Amino acid sequence: MTREVTIPPTHPRYASLMNREKIVSGYKNGLVALEGLIAHGRGECFDYLVGEQTTESAKLAINTAAAQLLVSEYPVISVNGNVAALCPESLCYLHRSVHKSMMEINLFYYTKEREEKISAELKKYGVDKVLGTNPKNLVKIPELESNRRWVDGSGIFRADTVFVPLEDGDRTLALKKMGKSIITVDLNPISRTSLAADITIVDNVIRAIPLLIERILYHKKNSSDYDLQQLIKRFDNKKGLKDALSIMSNNNVNRL
Amino acid sequence: MTREVTIPPTHPRYASLMNREKIVSGYKNGLVALEGLIAHGRGECFDYLVGEQTTESAKLAINTAAAQLLVSEYPVISVNGNVAALCPESLCYLHRSVHKSMMEINLFYYTKEREEKISAELKKYGVDKVLGTNPKNLVKIPELESNRRWVDGSGIFRADTVFVPLEDGDRTLALKKMGKSIITVDLNPISRTSLAADITIVDNVIRAIPLLIERILYHKKNSSDYDLQQLIKRFDNKKGLKDALSIMSNNNVNRL
Repeated sequence: MTREVTIPPTHPRYASLMNREKIVSGYKNGLVALEGLIAHGRGECFDYLVGEQTTESAKLAINTAAAQLLVSEYPVISVNGNVAALCPESLCYLHRSVHKSMMEINLFYYTKEREEKISAELKKYGVDKVLGTNPKNLVKIPELESNRRWVDGSGIFRADTVFVPLEDGDRTLALKKMGKSIITVDLNPISRTSLAADITIVDNVIRAIPLLIERILYHKKNSSDYDLQQLIKRFDNKKGLKDALSIMSNNNVNRL
Repeated sequence: MTREVTIPPTHPRYASLMNREKIVSGYKNGLVALEGLIAHGRGECFDYLVGEQTTESAKLAINTAAAQLLVSEYPVISVNGNVAALCPESLCYLHRSVHKSMMEINLFYYTKEREEKISAELKKYGVDKVLGTNPKNLVKIPELESNRRWVDGSGIFRADTVFVPLEDGDRTLALKKMGKSIITVDLNPISRTSLAADITIVDNVIRAIPLLIERILYHKKNSSDYDLQQLIKRFDNKKGLKDALSIMSNNNVNRL
């Protein structure tokens, strides 16, 4: 199938349309599942409702997530096909900016081919060790039936904090029950993942991750461990979700 | 490509994930356009907001749509790829339950192959005549530039009522200008189709069509032509849209 994408940079939704192209390319290159295209469409819709920009509430969640990653003993960054297609470079930069962190591939619609393609994509950006791909190291998350119950014994299984952008609700809940601190990026403020996570960044992952890195670099320079702990302590995740929903509601009512 | 999709029936969003699988299968079987996957994702977003259940307002719209289909002289059911992938069986049952009705294929992203696959899919469920596929019978809808300006001269062109689930806004407006009564199913209460239609069912097409059939069977047994006309006369489409939007805004706040 040949097609020419000719979206002019002046198009009001240029950024969103370019991200859609990244997902379509990701599908063609074997990183993204067909279901991932649909999930991306859902995300686009919520992004549209939130105004396609990072809200003040999301910025607060990002700042707190930066603190949480820095105070963690063993934070793990979970990578799926859509995230790998949308922002592999900034994700790998995030990993490097939190020196104790590890990266782990975890797919809802698992195939060996996809896993290998995603692993190769991350290695392109200088990541030497990617967890989750060696069957010998995999252990089961309790209480989870889907393919996603398998995690790496040296990765998510022993992590204290897990960063799971664009995650399935069942899995987030299972990780939560295991006592982990969960950070997610999810444009749907009422998804089970958003509700279960400790820190939910209601934002487009493409906008959120560079901002997260920026806050990490800032805190590494300027904040004490006590400062970071205070930030985390004061954070109210429910309030952030309510703010996001309220923005989505008000924007819409004004349109009718 | 081999893959195992093992979504357990215990997954709280099993129904939605299974519908996603229907669209993915539809794409693989040539019924659904790649763009249809993204459109489905957008639908999932709005379905999430509405609570993934049929609201009282939607039930009222469904009841009125049943009346409208029964009082029409020549109702036509418009079929596109996503509808054909999601609920071909109930759509064909709907057609049989309204004995004057005709089915017509109308695609936004037209290819001959998709049209043929969709036609074959409908015939699988016992529909002997499908309109919209014979180039000799096609006529133009005025004021419309896309492929969708072509409709069947024996179908939508001469219909008094058109049932257009999951329809493009431009086309709905053009049909409206031609003086037709429009019934649609659209989860987005602020889409141009939702705003332009006479009866907008803000619901998932998978849930709505069986309920529509149920109301048709009920009215055929129990309602006079006068009853049906009164139902239609009393119906306020804007109110239904406002209700849907209000549920999307308020319900969700209560979930948090």
